[in-house]
Order: sequence, then structure tokens, then C-alpha cells
Amino acid sequence: MEITELRTPCLILDEKKFRDHCNWMKDKCKRLGVNLRPHLKTGKSREVALCQMISQEGPATVSTLLEAENFFSWGVRDLIYAVGISPSKFSRAAELIKKGCRLKVILDNVETAKALSNFCEKSHIEIPVLIEIDCDGHRSGVKPVSPDLIGIASALTDGAKLVGVLTHAGDSYGCVGSKACRKAAENERDSIVLAANRLKEAGFNIEIISVGSTPTATFAENWAGCTEVRCGVYCIGDLVMAGVGVYKLEDLALSLLVEVIGHQKEKGWVITDGGWMALSRDRGTASQAVDYGYGAVCDVNGKILDNLYVKLANQEHGVIVNRTGEAISPEDFPVGTKLRILPNHACAMAAQHHSYHVVNDGKVIAEWPRFCGW
Amino acid sequence: MEITELRTPCLILDEKKFRDHCNWMKDKCKRLGVNLRPHLKTGKSREVALCQMISQEGPATVSTLLEAENFFSWGVRDLIYAVGISPSKFSRAAELIKKGCRLKVILDNVETAKALSNFCEKSHIEIPVLIEIDCDGHRSGVKPVSPDLIGIASALTDGAKLVGVLTHAGDSYGCVGSKACRKAAENERDSIVLAANRLKEAGFNIEIISVGSTPTATFAENWAGCTEVRCGVYCIGDLVMAGVGVYKLEDLALSLLVEVIGHQKEKGWVITDGGWMALSRDRGTASQAVDYGYGAVCDVNGKILDNLYVKLANQEHGVIVNRTGEAISPEDFPVGTKLRILPNHACAMAAQHHSYHVVNDGKVIAEWPRFCGW
Repeated sequence: MEITELRTPCLILDEKKFRDHCNWMKDKCKRLGVNLRPHLKTGKSREVALCQMISQEGPATVSTLLEAENFFSWGVRDLIYAVGISPSKFSRAAELIKKGCRLKVILDNVETAKALSNFCEKSHIEIPVLIEIDCDGHRSGVKPVSPDLIGIASALTDGAKLVGVLTHAGDSYGCVGSKACRKAAENERDSIVLAANRLKEAGFNIEIISVGSTPTATFAENWAGCTEVRCGVYCIGDLVMAGVGVYKLEDLALSLLVEVIGHQKEKGWVITDGGWMALSRDRGTASQAVDYGYGAVCDVNGKILDNLYVKLANQEHGVIVNRTGEAISPEDFPVGTKLRILPNHACAMAAQHHSYHVVNDGKVIAEWPRFCGW
Repeated sequence: MEITELRTPCLILDEKKFRDHCNWMKDKCKRLGVNLRPHLKTGKSREVALCQMISQEGPATVSTLLEAENFFSWGVRDLIYAVGISPSKFSRAAELIKKGCRLKVILDNVETAKALSNFCEKSHIEIPVLIEIDCDGHRSGVKPVSPDLIGIASALTDGAKLVGVLTHAGDSYGCVGSKACRKAAENERDSIVLAANRLKEAGFNIEIISVGSTPTATFAENWAGCTEVRCGVYCIGDLVMAGVGVYKLEDLALSLLVEVIGHQKEKGWVITDGGWMALSRDRGTASQAVDYGYGAVCDVNGKILDNLYVKLANQEHGVIVNRTGEAISPEDFPVGTKLRILPNHACAMAAQHHSYHVVNDGKVIAEWPRFCGW
């Protein structure tokens, strides 16, 4: 099938770029002696996951229990649900474990540790737990030096079984360049190793020492003391990751196919059917050196059209302008022209769609379904 | 079912507020002597649409051909697809018309008018067309005074049958207060009436003269010369509409149910499972007088908690802070606490979900499915 036969707007996944990114990270983790536990939250697709993982059974990371349930139903056995669990989700996690899923949950406070321990006692179930460590103040987690760390570990009793520690260098998304990312990676590693050592010294059994974010996983040079690396958007890439320095624009594997539906000649605008519903409202590049609005513009074959970007977006309209201020001539992009838009944030754009149209050598070779929801 | 039994994150629709908004707009349009053609793009739900429309057969407005197909399959007959049509969508629109849908399309340029005329000639089909008028420079459309207007009408030949004109006062979303919205409504009406009159004087048959946006539809006092009004988000409301002055916070019918999953005590943060995946990345209030971050916070019963808002959001984490800078005490919102978040933009938040949990008098009385895609 030709790309031009697809209904717009829709997602295009460049198979070669995607597989290259997957393989690069597999090779790196192997070389540095850590397990790769890819995050499946970007793709939310069986086919994407199969290419990311080192085996059909995992290991892998998920951001929702629906992801855990779906990927388990497709054969993935070793999963970490890497968002702090809360009481109303205990029984759903337990159901998966009863079915044979080696699901691990995370938490960062004594309150949840006690509640989970009570739940496990009452339900006669063992739930493996990692304590979430805050390495950079980005969001959740307990500081590696916090007195609470030992308190949380001690509050895990009965079936709530401490198996490890986990951190995510979320602040690395704000880094620019390899040096800054490497520094974030070193801090991520130092933090998790410190937390693991404190727990080990206090007599706790720590098997899994888990780090990861795409910027730190890409630039880290040393994972000594860590057992595994998690990362997600590395497999696809986006403009934010390009701004961080992880990728060049031509490496990005995901784009939105759109069609020109009109112009505003006087303003030099090209208007397409790719609005924020299809691109997502993500404006991640707004705080970076180059602000791409709602996305950078390529021709239908994926060739980057310098200076063109989606400056404005309504629900089903995208407005492309030239960054130089020069008006775009309607003759250059007549109504019906197909274009491809590179997203600010692949996780956010992909979430607006039900499938990826996989393209290789200019042809659409497959449609990979994806899912949404919780 | 109790609200607290729902899985988080999920949408809550307050039935009474929603039905009141629907009825208010029906009454207003009746009183002012225009047809209400509600936009179904916010709800994307059969049940929401049935309450918005004056009859099960419509009229109604849609933003995608998938909406047209779905609502037609549920019995809606009179539809306007209110995004400029482009060549690759002609045959899909024609299919609906062949099945008996009274679908009308819009366009704003000679190029598309000619292409559609050719298509209709070759396909032996009649497709009713409205010319899109640009009343405020917001996005698409031809200016009412433009010489192109008559050219577009003249380019519609064969089955491409001109039936009317349509405009959308998109810039009214930037208005604050009733006076500014009324001015935008007057401009919207003046523009469309001017365009309609120019076409009539040139000998064209103009049956439908269509205006609409929630701010202008709410505050307009005079629709003389217009035949119908389109609006969508009025039926639900959101923080952006509250900032415009259309609603008070307590009128908003849609919220996201979330659960507290942790805290950062030192920072005074409450962390929930409602991240940007569930709230959307929309930051519509960022440019308004009160910036609500990713949403305003209510208790589980919908009571607004003054000064609390979702300042930060990751994919599956929302961070609630107090606007005054005062730290929120974890004891006030222990892990497991359910809260409700009012969205910046109802269309964007709803699009992240598969259903609405309809609440009346504190009980969940129904689950209304919704759809996504194109």
C-alpha cells in the first residue's frame, strides 16, 4: 500500500529507524552488563513491545495496570508497574499475580507499605515490591538518604515482599547535550546504589536495582551496581528528545500523516487536517532552544522541510508557517498535498491513535494496533 | 454504585449540570428563533448527543467523518462536517450521502470547489456545500468581503451544490466577560450575513446561514439573518470557558476522578494517579487571568477546594499544590483519598477516555461510551 492511500490524519512508524533504536539499546545494555527492561508506555502495542524486549516474556515496564493486563495476556511475564500503587489497585495487581504474572509494584511511603502488607496478609498473596527512590526531585520517591527509606522497608511485612529499588531521572528531560545527560545518569546511578546499599546494610534483600530514562540510558557510561535499565521513548524518538540531544530530527521514527485542506494566503499559512486531537496538546519543545510549536514538517517521504512547523492547532486544524516569517505559497502545497509532522512528544501523540501504519522503503507494510485507557 | 468504587483515573459527568446546560441552549435558540445544530465533537457519545440535539435525527455538527459515520449509524440524519473537506475525503462523504445521510460539507477555496465539482460529476452524486467564512482571522475561511467568495460559489458546479455559509468565531475563546463575547457574537453575525447577502445578490441560493462558538452562542442577543447556531463545549463546560465568563467553576459538568498515591512532604505536594494522559496536555488557562495548571481540584463530591490545583503532570502522575505556597499536609489527603479534577479543556480531556461515568445525586447511575479516532 502507498502512504498516500492512507486516511489522514494517521500515525506513520518508520520500521527501520524504530528497529535500529530498539537494537541499539539492547546492544548497549548487553555491552554494559545490565538487563534491559523497556518501558511499554510509549508504544502500548504488542508489536512495538516485541521489538523492544529481549524476550517475548519480558522483562518490561508498564505505566498502568491495563498495560500490565494486556501485555500479560500476550505472553509477557516479568513486569514492573512503575507508578506508585495505591490501595484501590491492590486487588487488580493481585489478580495478575494469581494468574502467573511476575508483576512487581512500587511505592514510596510507609502508609502504602502498611496497607499493602495488610492486603497481602488478608489475601494470602505475595506481592513483590520495589521502593521508589527520588534521585532528582522530579516527582515521586523517597530520597536515598532519607530516614524514611528504612522505615518503608520495615513496614513491608507478610506477603508484601521487598525485592528492590527503582528510580527515574525525570529531570534529565531538561538536560541539553551528552555531558549534562551523563551527569544526570551518574546521579541516577549514585542515588540508587546508595539507597540499595543502605537497605542491604540494614539487612534487607535487594535483588533488583533499577534505573532509567531515555536521556540517561542513552548517554550513561557506567551502570555498575545497577541490575537493570528502563527506558521507553528511545525506541521511537521525538522532538523533545532531539532537543535533549538524544536524536537528530532525521532519526525520529514516528510522524503524523496529514493532508492540506486550505490556506490563508495573506498570512502565508498552510492549513492541514492534523490538529491537536491528532498531534496531542503537548508543547514540550516550548521550553527548549528550538520551539517547534505542535510539530516539525516533513514531506510525504519524511524529508524534513527546513523552517516549516505547526505553529497553531485547533481540534482538527493544524496551521503550518515558515519560521523565517516568509509567507508559504499555496502553489507549493496545494490542497490535497500529504505531509508528515514530527511530534513534540511521541507518547502523547501516539496516545491519540488506535494504530501505527508501519512504513518500510516508502511502502505501508503493516498496521500495528495500539490501545489506550487504564 | 458509589463514586469511590470506580477505577481511577476516569471521567465523571454530572448529569444534572449537563442536562441543564443542554436545555438552556435549546431554550435560548428557540426563544431567538434559530435552529440549534449542536457540535458533537466534545462528547463523541451517542447519549451526550441525544441530550444535546432537538431531535434524534439532528441537526448536528461533527468535526470528523468518523463522527459523521457513527452518529449516522445511530440515527442522526442532518449533519454538517464543519472542517474544510479535502480531496481524499470526498468518497467517504459520498458514501454517507448514498446511504441517506443529509451530510453537508464545507470548503473555503476555488481549488477544492473545482475538485469536488469534478468528483460529483464523475460520481453522479449531489453533495451539499457550505462556504466557510472567516469572521475573525482565527483559522480557515474566506473573508466575507473577499472577491474570492463569489469565485468559490461559481466554481461549485454539477452535483457540488451550494446551500449556505458557515462561520465560527474562534477568537471568542480569547474574550473575557459578556460584553466582549457579545461583541464577538455581533461580529460573527455581521460577517455571515454580509457573506450570505453578497452571494444572494450574485444570484446564489443560500438556505443555511450558520454561526457558532460557545462564548458567542452563550452571550449573543440577536441572531437576525442567521438560520442556525452551532456550539459544543457549552454542554459540559471547562476552566477555559469559566475564564471566558461562560460558566462558574461550580457549573462545570465534567471532572476526572483520581486517587492520591503519595506525597512530597517537604514540598507540600500531593501526588495522584491523574497525569497528563488522563487530563490531556491542554494548558488552555495558561493565557487566562487564573492559570489552573492541569486542572482545579475538588473533593470526591465535586466541592471545589480553593487554591488547590494540578501544577505539574507526568504521564501518569499529577502533582497538586496550594496556590498560596502553603504546603499541603499529607494528613489532609492521605494515600487512597479520591479527588476530582476540573479540566482546562473538556474536549481534550474527554478524548483521553472511552466512557463517561454519569453521576446523579452522588451515585453513579450509568456509563456512557465514547469514541476516538478519525
